[in-house]
Amino acid sequence: MKQQITDFFKILQDDICQKIEAADGKGKFRQDLWERDGGGGGRTRIIEGQHIEKGGVNFSAVQGALPEKIAKALNLEEGNFYATGVSIVLHPKSPMVPIIHMNVRYFEVETKNDEPQTWWFGGGIDLTPHYVVEEDAQFFHRHLKSVCDQHHKDYFPKFKTWADDYFYVRHRKETRGVGGIFFDRLSGQDGFSKEQRFDFVKDVGEAFCPIYTYLLKKNKNLEFGEEEKKWQYLRRGRYVEFNLVWDKGTKFGLDTDGRTESILMSLPPTVQWVYDHQTKPGSREEKTLQLLKKGIDWT
Amino acid sequence: MKQQITDFFKILQDDICQKIEAADGKGKFRQDLWERDGGGGGRTRIIEGQHIEKGGVNFSAVQGALPEKIAKALNLEEGNFYATGVSIVLHPKSPMVPIIHMNVRYFEVETKNDEPQTWWFGGGIDLTPHYVVEEDAQFFHRHLKSVCDQHHKDYFPKFKTWADDYFYVRHRKETRGVGGIFFDRLSGQDGFSKEQRFDFVKDVGEAFCPIYTYLLKKNKNLEFGEEEKKWQYLRRGRYVEFNLVWDKGTKFGLDTDGRTESILMSLPPTVQWVYDHQTKPGSREEKTLQLLKKGIDWT
Repeated sequence: MKQQITDFFKILQDDICQKIEAADGKGKFRQDLWERDGGGGGRTRIIEGQHIEKGGVNFSAVQGALPEKIAKALNLEEGNFYATGVSIVLHPKSPMVPIIHMNVRYFEVETKNDEPQTWWFGGGIDLTPHYVVEEDAQFFHRHLKSVCDQHHKDYFPKFKTWADDYFYVRHRKETRGVGGIFFDRLSGQDGFSKEQRFDFVKDVGEAFCPIYTYLLKKNKNLEFGEEEKKWQYLRRGRYVEFNLVWDKGTKFGLDTDGRTESILMSLPPTVQWVYDHQTKPGSREEKTLQLLKKGIDWT
Repeated sequence: MKQQITDFFKILQDDICQKIEAADGKGKFRQDLWERDGGGGGRTRIIEGQHIEKGGVNFSAVQGALPEKIAKALNLEEGNFYATGVSIVLHPKSPMVPIIHMNVRYFEVETKNDEPQTWWFGGGIDLTPHYVVEEDAQFFHRHLKSVCDQHHKDYFPKFKTWADDYFYVRHRKETRGVGGIFFDRLSGQDGFSKEQRFDFVKDVGEAFCPIYTYLLKKNKNLEFGEEEKKWQYLRRGRYVEFNLVWDKGTKFGLDTDGRTESILMSLPPTVQWVYDHQTKPGSREEKTLQLLKKGIDWT
């Protein structure tokens, strides 16, 4: 089945790249193929377009001996592993268009003797608007809820809360954006079959394009000026802070000698840090900060 | 003695701020006073000048119950602590002028009963040129060596190697800059008295201004264009990566609810990330990368 999952992720990458190129209308992805020393490799694809200033859509399928650090962190015995997934971050040119991130992944450990196989799926989609637009956040969460609800009624509330907790910039006491869904270690617990979990992950992956192309189209032609660009650069700074300080995936990748350029393709093109920046009372910037909180029900 | 050390650090901050203002010729520091919930506080001073685009000179003196996390990390029993120090990062406007960082600090734990007191000094100075200029790196290291040599012949070789190891951007396989000196837990070992350690730390602190004002004056009027600015933005990206991913001080501060704005004043004003940037063969940029290695004897 791992081949089937891998094939799906490859086709998903192809499909997403094609649709993002169409939505951008100008940019084309360039591809870097890479191999991992211990086994496997990936296809990193990067776009610099007219609407997507910098975006990456990565596919990877890696295997080999489970590094000790990872085995420990995952509470697994050492052995051979297989991991595959698709990972996306898009930084739009316009501050009126949100940043989006998606990841879908599958992990398994080689079975020894007659033990049951260890496997799981993980992933999520989350949205980081520079300016929080309530109707966009609602559209986003409702779309994710409808995807989740087709698989299990507990999925959305559980994975929405998980995203609130995961995408939290602790030292800023704010969420990275308006959240979304996050899930990990979805395995055979609670009577789910592998096929059922895979079907869910497929639907999450396939939800990416309709969601983002809608949000891009809706907002890409909105006017903005210097003030909005400046705010975008500051918000991107928070994105960097989250990814480099708190994101477990990034830390793990860098810590275990992953391919640096593929891991850090998530970082924005231009960023600014201003000491102790304060928003103006009553401004859209202030309103945005007030909405970067856990526990908001956007549906 | 902790009062004497604290007073020295305060005066050092005053002195450095005054001399940096004079060297910049235009910018003035603004000050934020802050208090720490558990006890103590600090004076964060920020400059945005004509030559120093963004710089911070922080003094702090904090005390209280040792947070459990810190006690564990430092391998100490829980109790009351006192910590004071000065911390500086200056980001120049010109890509021809190096970024500089300095830190001097003192830490002690309240003595229980008749146990000997636990105390130590730490600190360092390191230089991060956007373009490595060999004679500047030599000047910098020779100056630090002469400061160290006045206190102990082993100081410079030991602390220079320590800086090479500490200021290493592991996931990029490059040093943050041309290094300098780094030291920690300088206590009463090897027959040093507290006064002797303090005298050394004083001299390190007082070396900052002559070093940086020389380097600023020498390079601030050199011409540069778009290409050099672009390279500066990329190099600042590596600075961010080091500080947020690897710097123990930053991680510790954020992890233990330190004052975020004071900790992250070290981040540069404008930064860029470009996917898989490649330097041109034979360029000054390529030469710089070749010199970002451990173990270069600049003296």
